[in-house]
Amino acid sequence: MVEEINPPQRLLMGPGPINAHPRVLRVMSAPLLGQFDPQFREYMRQASELYRGVFQTANRWTLLVDGTARAAIEAALVSLIEPGDRVLVPVFGRFGHLIVEIAKRCGAAVQAIEVEWGTVFPDEALSAAIRKHRPKIVAISHGDTSTTMAQPLADLGRVCREEDILLYVDATATLGGMDLPVDAWHLDVVSAGLQKCLGGPPGSAPLTLNARAERRIVRRRHIEGGLQDKNYRAGDGPAIQSNYFDLAMIMDYWSDKALNHHTEATSMLYAARECARVLLQEGLPAAFERHARASRALTEGLQAMGLKLFGDQAHKMANVTGVHIPAGVDGERVRHALLNEHNIEIGTSFGPLHGKIWRIGTMGYNAREEAVTTTLRALETVLAAQKFRRP
Amino acid sequence: MVEEINPPQRLLMGPGPINAHPRVLRVMSAPLLGQFDPQFREYMRQASELYRGVFQTANRWTLLVDGTARAAIEAALVSLIEPGDRVLVPVFGRFGHLIVEIAKRCGAAVQAIEVEWGTVFPDEALSAAIRKHRPKIVAISHGDTSTTMAQPLADLGRVCREEDILLYVDATATLGGMDLPVDAWHLDVVSAGLQKCLGGPPGSAPLTLNARAERRIVRRRHIEGGLQDKNYRAGDGPAIQSNYFDLAMIMDYWSDKALNHHTEATSMLYAARECARVLLQEGLPAAFERHARASRALTEGLQAMGLKLFGDQAHKMANVTGVHIPAGVDGERVRHALLNEHNIEIGTSFGPLHGKIWRIGTMGYNAREEAVTTTLRALETVLAAQKFRRP
Repeated sequence: MVEEINPPQRLLMGPGPINAHPRVLRVMSAPLLGQFDPQFREYMRQASELYRGVFQTANRWTLLVDGTARAAIEAALVSLIEPGDRVLVPVFGRFGHLIVEIAKRCGAAVQAIEVEWGTVFPDEALSAAIRKHRPKIVAISHGDTSTTMAQPLADLGRVCREEDILLYVDATATLGGMDLPVDAWHLDVVSAGLQKCLGGPPGSAPLTLNARAERRIVRRRHIEGGLQDKNYRAGDGPAIQSNYFDLAMIMDYWSDKALNHHTEATSMLYAARECARVLLQEGLPAAFERHARASRALTEGLQAMGLKLFGDQAHKMANVTGVHIPAGVDGERVRHALLNEHNIEIGTSFGPLHGKIWRIGTMGYNAREEAVTTTLRALETVLAAQKFRRP
Repeated sequence: MVEEINPPQRLLMGPGPINAHPRVLRVMSAPLLGQFDPQFREYMRQASELYRGVFQTANRWTLLVDGTARAAIEAALVSLIEPGDRVLVPVFGRFGHLIVEIAKRCGAAVQAIEVEWGTVFPDEALSAAIRKHRPKIVAISHGDTSTTMAQPLADLGRVCREEDILLYVDATATLGGMDLPVDAWHLDVVSAGLQKCLGGPPGSAPLTLNARAERRIVRRRHIEGGLQDKNYRAGDGPAIQSNYFDLAMIMDYWSDKALNHHTEATSMLYAARECARVLLQEGLPAAFERHARASRALTEGLQAMGLKLFGDQAHKMANVTGVHIPAGVDGERVRHALLNEHNIEIGTSFGPLHGKIWRIGTMGYNAREEAVTTTLRALETVLAAQKFRRP
């Protein structure tokens, strides 16, 4: 029989998951409650209210999807997209491709537009693409950790609202670390995950949607066999092709009707609730400034070591930094030495950037000065052992 | 700002979730690891190996789906069912209807057969239905908590194997509480959840599949945009309509290739691993006998109080018991008094049984004598206060 779990104390400075806040880890040991226990329903309502604060929204439907960040992306897209819908996906990194992938599986007629990895779309490019392709839905990432870029969204939100297009934003990598005022920017559906700037474990995915999105989803509402109820009104739209990710059903489960659907993941809900409490107690502006400060400390430190940053620095995310692997240095040997000799994890890269850059996160609980300086010192030591000399 | 979480100490004697084993709650506070950390990959391999023991299988592909039990049902069905496939679903309770519902959304041509709630299918009825409908897939629950019935599966497994039909079994409510020898019974895909007899929180769903199922799934393998790799071979079958529940991708993520997909839910994996350790340390035969003993103690106690059991007792699950609400007693008042005065939760019922029976679980950590006697004493007290007299 294998022994009890005993993980090493890593400092997780990759693009996520990162070390969870100690308070978040602790609440997961709290006793379970039944899913319809009045106290548990109260915790669900509190989680909704807390995430309204995090998302800067008044949206009634602010809830958790029981899965990792990717689960909420799929829940949003499968509930919004009806087969044949035209969906525009601006791709500026790997997670844009993921949105394309999921949207296609939902039966969308996807139009993808791309920019070079390490850049973002100018506002005019997005509005021109909207005029050209006339989509019903635009789906885009806010920050794409694969390239470390953050796409400005305020203008896109305004244009989509004017054109009556639904706008979905994947904020997995930015929520809690960069400003994302959902209502002010006119974002219709936004989802995230706990394991980045929210400082929790992966496995619960906050999602918010407004009345525009609700109207589209509710007309696809569907009555589950074995639960028929004369008070329950089905919609006249096409059924959502997933049951688990059917947001109409998930909304009914989170509503005061408390209609049975899945069994809410108790301990992960405790964790999600605590992530939001930690963040809102600090205050969003303070948390954003802390992430920006950690990012500046990291980028200045890397440059002082003679390393070159990746991508358009004007649009770099505050919580993850790409840095070129210097010529003559074996990137994977450096990562292994950091992990095995210093217990520090930094990230490798995907696709066209594989082998070319490392990605270093300064997220959530790890957006702290000593986490940054510890990482920089260890990296300097490891690079020196590999005979790297600053140019 | 709402305060820190402080749940009351409930004794959860409903049909699940139940109180998690204290060791399982504790491991969730362990520090996180990166998803590609060698130590975390080792924990994933250990979880696979432990669940091979729990499922009594040699299946290579034994893994966790990151969601609640329902997530694994959908992952199994959406990965097995190609649009238009004939799927036979024997329904003996609410969770049979759920399988019908999910299978239809996967595009199956579903043939459902039903028996009265409180009974199961005779073996001959199942083999006759198979001969009549010639399905490609049979999908069925092992135990349906809505009726407390457990369907015998050994003969069904034999017939499906002879006829080269794929057999999916939803063992959410029985795994760890009743014997379910996956290989011996020829079950091709079986899934469960932690929150019943495995004694963990909802949010992680063990699943096992054999080589027959693997062949069907792998031919639907699909390359995710942004991750193209010349060593990766796509299949020639129709793409699976979900990305999150694409078992071909989830298998690649769990394999030594460690292809990126979702981010494994770290703390829930720790929990799932510990659930299996607790169970296997006790030993499966001892755990099954403990559940059977708790069930006998409960049913004898209920009858001694003059209450009448629901359904075919020869096929009752070992871990949940249905009991008729006596005439003149308000079932919901009793449940509320148990919860508010005794901190004990028992279950209400769905559909045709709503208002007619309570459901009392003796599952996992709560399949203990003192949990049963505490529940019986409290129920007796509450019923006496409602002027119930034994007939």
